[in-house]
Amino acid sequence: MKNVFIHHVYFWLKNTDSKDDLATLVAGLEKLSTCATIQSFHIGKPAATSREVIDGSYAVSWCLLFANKADQDAYQTDPIHLHFIETCQHLWSKVIVYDSVDV
Amino acid sequence: MKNVFIHHVYFWLKNTDSKDDLATLVAGLEKLSTCATIQSFHIGKPAATSREVIDGSYAVSWCLLFANKADQDAYQTDPIHLHFIETCQHLWSKVIVYDSVDV
Repeated sequence: MKNVFIHHVYFWLKNTDSKDDLATLVAGLEKLSTCATIQSFHIGKPAATSREVIDGSYAVSWCLLFANKADQDAYQTDPIHLHFIETCQHLWSKVIVYDSVDV
Repeated sequence: MKNVFIHHVYFWLKNTDSKDDLATLVAGLEKLSTCATIQSFHIGKPAATSREVIDGSYAVSWCLLFANKADQDAYQTDPIHLHFIETCQHLWSKVIVYDSVDV
């Protein structure tokens, strides 16, 4: 992959064992995936891997590919995104975001 | 993206300001990208974004897509991968890995 902006978000749930909260967050991300500037997306959960360097403590991985930073910036203020934050932010206790562009 | 195993690694350099070390790590990853089971890859650096939730402190992002866990497992023991670790591990001070599969 070249000429891409990767926006990778990891969510930790407030109610770590709540399957309902997990399902609500995933449903919210599915709606969020309709934002126009998203090229492709992946909604993930931790894989069944375990080594010292692996952080498998998160609940949901949200990986987005954009064509460029401008498209990612547009996503941040997209009404669909703002609605997602408003309706889902009570679900998570922690979020880490890593934004990457070509070296 | 569906039916995918995302292996996303973030590297922090020991010599944080060394452009040579950064270039050596990137060159190592370019060689590493030839592992047979990798579907696609991205070698990244932090984007020019800054919010409270964004961790932009890493030096290099290494994002790999595999068809499934078996292919990722094969990558872990691929001689090209073992050679990469042997020749490049002196460069980094910290590595965090997030492995994700479809929810």
